[in-house]
Amino acid sequence: MTSINYYPNEPTKPIVKTSNVPGPESQKQLEQLDKVFDARAAYFVADYEKSDGNYIFDVDGNAYLDLYAQIASIALGYNNPALIKAAQSPEMIRALVDRPAPGNFPSADMAKILAKILQFAPKGQDHVWSGLSGADANELAFKAAFMYYRARERGYETEFSAEENVSVMENAAPGAPDLAVLSFKKAFHGRLFASGSTTVSKPIHKLDFPAFDWPHAEYPTYRYPLEKYEEENHKEDDRCLEIVEQLIKTWKSPVAALIIEPIQSEGGDNHASKYFLQKLRDITLKYNVVYIIDEVQTGVGATGKNWCHEYADIQPPVDLVTFSKKMQSAGYFFHDPKFIPNKPYRQFNTWCGEPARMIIAGAIVQEIIDHDLTSQVNRVGDYLFKKLEALQTQYPAKFQNLRGKNRGTFIAWDLPTPTERDTLLKKLRLHGCNVGGCSTNSVRLRPTLTFDEKHVDIFIDALSKCVTEL
Amino acid sequence: MTSINYYPNEPTKPIVKTSNVPGPESQKQLEQLDKVFDARAAYFVADYEKSDGNYIFDVDGNAYLDLYAQIASIALGYNNPALIKAAQSPEMIRALVDRPAPGNFPSADMAKILAKILQFAPKGQDHVWSGLSGADANELAFKAAFMYYRARERGYETEFSAEENVSVMENAAPGAPDLAVLSFKKAFHGRLFASGSTTVSKPIHKLDFPAFDWPHAEYPTYRYPLEKYEEENHKEDDRCLEIVEQLIKTWKSPVAALIIEPIQSEGGDNHASKYFLQKLRDITLKYNVVYIIDEVQTGVGATGKNWCHEYADIQPPVDLVTFSKKMQSAGYFFHDPKFIPNKPYRQFNTWCGEPARMIIAGAIVQEIIDHDLTSQVNRVGDYLFKKLEALQTQYPAKFQNLRGKNRGTFIAWDLPTPTERDTLLKKLRLHGCNVGGCSTNSVRLRPTLTFDEKHVDIFIDALSKCVTEL
Repeated sequence: MTSINYYPNEPTKPIVKTSNVPGPESQKQLEQLDKVFDARAAYFVADYEKSDGNYIFDVDGNAYLDLYAQIASIALGYNNPALIKAAQSPEMIRALVDRPAPGNFPSADMAKILAKILQFAPKGQDHVWSGLSGADANELAFKAAFMYYRARERGYETEFSAEENVSVMENAAPGAPDLAVLSFKKAFHGRLFASGSTTVSKPIHKLDFPAFDWPHAEYPTYRYPLEKYEEENHKEDDRCLEIVEQLIKTWKSPVAALIIEPIQSEGGDNHASKYFLQKLRDITLKYNVVYIIDEVQTGVGATGKNWCHEYADIQPPVDLVTFSKKMQSAGYFFHDPKFIPNKPYRQFNTWCGEPARMIIAGAIVQEIIDHDLTSQVNRVGDYLFKKLEALQTQYPAKFQNLRGKNRGTFIAWDLPTPTERDTLLKKLRLHGCNVGGCSTNSVRLRPTLTFDEKHVDIFIDALSKCVTEL
Repeated sequence: MTSINYYPNEPTKPIVKTSNVPGPESQKQLEQLDKVFDARAAYFVADYEKSDGNYIFDVDGNAYLDLYAQIASIALGYNNPALIKAAQSPEMIRALVDRPAPGNFPSADMAKILAKILQFAPKGQDHVWSGLSGADANELAFKAAFMYYRARERGYETEFSAEENVSVMENAAPGAPDLAVLSFKKAFHGRLFASGSTTVSKPIHKLDFPAFDWPHAEYPTYRYPLEKYEEENHKEDDRCLEIVEQLIKTWKSPVAALIIEPIQSEGGDNHASKYFLQKLRDITLKYNVVYIIDEVQTGVGATGKNWCHEYADIQPPVDLVTFSKKMQSAGYFFHDPKFIPNKPYRQFNTWCGEPARMIIAGAIVQEIIDHDLTSQVNRVGDYLFKKLEALQTQYPAKFQNLRGKNRGTFIAWDLPTPTERDTLLKKLRLHGCNVGGCSTNSVRLRPTLTFDEKHVDIFIDALSKCVTEL
């Protein structure tokens, strides 16, 4: 029951030297930065040289306990020694200075790098294809899904028809078929054009961009605590499943794939039950729809399993699982070899991923395995959740829909209004805790996997103070 | 008139130890690799540790003079000392182990990193937004273009309407407007869904993927040598310009942006004249179309200018210039501040580029500037082109449409058939020269910027031998 102690020099508590965040030095640097970058959304300018473990420093010398971790994308903490070692390795230098086009000129290092990532593949998956970001991972998965879907229709080995070869060059069917990906309201799958068409989080993420005419089903909205509302929530699952099935049956174009987050993260930490995720498997099998799980934010240990959807033990395993963020690399896992297209150069691009980030990903998952960090996350998550339940009892209005029990540190709750949520996050920063929001009035906790009980105590102490000030 | 000599240990000539490429050790490793990667398109397994300067080694100990350079994406050669230094810098270690979400938590290093990239901005551009790959750069540019286009219609400061906010969540107009990007036949702008809709290179790049219904104009097809066919080629420009204008006027949806490569690279090294590129500026201004130049393959010195479209001295400067490949980082340059959206979080994502690659990009452009490598490219390109003209005189059928005169080492020519082209490339590898093709029967030369006269002599010697064997 001990925590890995990577960070002997981590601060013992937050340091807040300035009366405002951003402080004066951050403000000065942000003014400069804004001349060459869009810095309007910046909270402060970070000093990553000083940042250590679970503490992020800013250029004013403030040190925040970080429960946001670069929008949920730092797995182990700042300046982790195992990652520094990987960053200084000869393999890394080669990856940085001699970046291959691995489809044509793979490196002798590549099989080893991929093997390290594959040891962390979700249960039921044993292949990986690499990309560059969450949006890229999802779009590569869509490409794999569309090719698979059409291959099943025409036969995997069947040659393309003359009509397909001609029409595709005009962006027209049958070569460029009118197929859809079904996603869910409040989903976030990225901000490129196809991924953006499956994203339904906020208008500001989508406005002014042309979109594919693809359907959005309803994602279940549960009542909390789950154990109290089992029957109601089950009915909610069935209501949403009915919508999914109807959309697949009636949408104006064939639904080739379905993509879902096991917990909708940007959209408000909305959880899907084991029952719901399994039923989607049944429906996708019934209608020959490729089943894609988006683990970009939920993956890599923070829920207490390597991959959140493993809680649902979906059988047979889903077709594609996408990842990014805390993996630092990105891509999709799969197991059916027919997701490898029938010809080369179809799932292809110059870089086929980023070898430097694939090396980092290998080092991250090795640390998670070697130090059994998911066990730590479960233990610390339980400890944290109980403390939050106690606060909820004390301030029920400020801790609505507390959720993420038995999901490690992947915890969220709602404030009554967006203003109160924003005020709380601001106060928390002034108390030395960097915390993020999601949806309009939710707080989401996204600490690293090395966050432990002493960090929980500091956070709960700050939170208690801030809540009374609301 | 000297060449920078980074590589004192570079082989003095190619080494070919095996009678086939891939050799036996490559074949063995490719069989293993194919279990975890799609290695069907691999030429050989490279040994990047041994690779040096303009020579790429494989795991059989063969050393090829590299005129393909990872699909035109290695600027300075293998294991360049300046890049190794950058890869070992404290800034790089930080970028690798503490990757920021810079929109929210920019690093204190960021302004400096961006300034290094911006010193290499094309003439007329002074801002940059960073992405991850060529496809990503183009799609980010499309997003910028669509926001700019709609902002001009509704007013930059005007709030979104309720109807826009509602319709966009259903992927419908007016929030998700039906706008088009016009590109050109034979273009290559990437393989994601929006970029893929502007790509018209080969069916295999596009088949089975839904596409936006966007128009493709005709790219001029010139007769060579250019100086002999000026009048004909001018007429060809006018013919294609007329098609562009007609498409903009009559396409089923408004054309918000036009994207063009100054030399279509994957599509066959098709060049566009100064006149053509300037006329497109006139047309895009006339119809309020955003003008995007794609310099993903043509940029970063290989044509003898930092950016190929600078030859055309387009006035007023184009709106957006996209880059990737030899920059190693990616993104778009711009100059009109209204290409920064009216609100934050519109052009936004977790990583906003890859800081490790931005550091490498800064080191690459610094070397190009410090050693005036574009002058070297021009000198070596002239030397190479003259040698190829001599071969053309000797074997006119095997050197059709020799092109790229006064465009540095960015040179190509056509073989009579795809089979002869493929045979030539295969023979060249067996003679120790790694060369790529483009389109169906073109050879494209894409050496690094440090390729010099001694390399030309070796290549021409091998080429002369191979051509006689065809």
